[in-house]
Amino acid sequence: MTDTTTRKKQQARAPVASPWADAPARAEQREAKRDAVLSTAAQLFNERGFHATSLDDIAARLHVSKPTLYYYVKNKDEILLQCVRRGLTMTLEGIEASRQAGGKAIDQLQACMRVYARIVTMDFGMCLIRVGDEQVPADSRKELRRLKSSIDQEFRRLVAEGVKEGSVAECDPKMTAFVIAGALSWIGRWYQPGGEYSADEVAEKCIATLLAGVLRHPAPMLVP
Amino acid sequence: MTDTTTRKKQQARAPVASPWADAPARAEQREAKRDAVLSTAAQLFNERGFHATSLDDIAARLHVSKPTLYYYVKNKDEILLQCVRRGLTMTLEGIEASRQAGGKAIDQLQACMRVYARIVTMDFGMCLIRVGDEQVPADSRKELRRLKSSIDQEFRRLVAEGVKEGSVAECDPKMTAFVIAGALSWIGRWYQPGGEYSADEVAEKCIATLLAGVLRHPAPMLVP
Repeated sequence: MTDTTTRKKQQARAPVASPWADAPARAEQREAKRDAVLSTAAQLFNERGFHATSLDDIAARLHVSKPTLYYYVKNKDEILLQCVRRGLTMTLEGIEASRQAGGKAIDQLQACMRVYARIVTMDFGMCLIRVGDEQVPADSRKELRRLKSSIDQEFRRLVAEGVKEGSVAECDPKMTAFVIAGALSWIGRWYQPGGEYSADEVAEKCIATLLAGVLRHPAPMLVP
Repeated sequence: MTDTTTRKKQQARAPVASPWADAPARAEQREAKRDAVLSTAAQLFNERGFHATSLDDIAARLHVSKPTLYYYVKNKDEILLQCVRRGLTMTLEGIEASRQAGGKAIDQLQACMRVYARIVTMDFGMCLIRVGDEQVPADSRKELRRLKSSIDQEFRRLVAEGVKEGSVAECDPKMTAFVIAGALSWIGRWYQPGGEYSADEVAEKCIATLLAGVLRHPAPMLVP
């Protein structure tokens, strides 16, 4: 065989590039499409409310037909559940990262406050705040409440440790955790992207007020 | 005519006590019944959510038929609107009373915080927090947002005056008002009557934390 023939045979043996994606790529595409369905749904729930949003609205914003949606999600209830679950999971992962980073309790507490304040300005986090628990199907509500409760417990634990290390004022950690969660959750109710402040600026300002308090503290008296 | 005849004639002229209430009493009864319908509805909305509550549920809890309800209210949308409007009106009246009482801005601010924290633990106020704006019919939403905005403006005004009088720390009054409203509104989300603390205790603890801040402040250095 001549060199040319060998090259031709080798070329013939090389597989034709398939116009279909291979299995891992298909799974990835499917996941990306499912993510787009959930994000779009979360945005619409946040804008109009859960009950005022239809699957048709979600499909229209994605330029697909309603039957296409059913390839990625079962129904509107399942979409809401997935949105809220993602918001909670993102928060818990952020809190876990702050814990791994270690350091003083007050630093961990501030890191968790930053995570929480940031997530409630994002689609899934905002959904967590704007759509009430009672709108989620009863059998899933228990799981979501468990996840919410772990976030709450983490804030209480860090507040209690902060009191022990002397960085946090003597308090009832349960009530203090509620004050923190309330002020930060509220951001998810009023925040509008593209407004006066960026999401980070809002978070910093609210956290600073929570930490230092509303009152002006008397300047410490200086020894002359 | 004898005395007896005169007395008999006079007795005949005295009107028989009517078993029907007179007009003012009827109006009062009607108002009390309408109040009961609204309070019961607010309780059910807070327990189950607006969409999960039917007029039949409201009628059942009041031991009346659904047609009886229609004598007092038009439909479920109107009930929700009235509940939220009452919550807002109670808050604005309380704020107005604190303003009338006068005094330093910080005292007025604390009085308003107390009013707000107390109202969100009550049926109509809780409804205001738990049921999202987007569930109210579109044409009434504007009015409710205007009322909500006046509460917000009042908090911002008092914070700004507090900064001027030196009682409140230098801040962005808009953000500080949001932190206050958020932490106090959150009470309406988690508070359960009959729990560990009374509504007043919860209000006092949350307000104290908001005013003094989460951090432990260094004790002022004493001149020896």
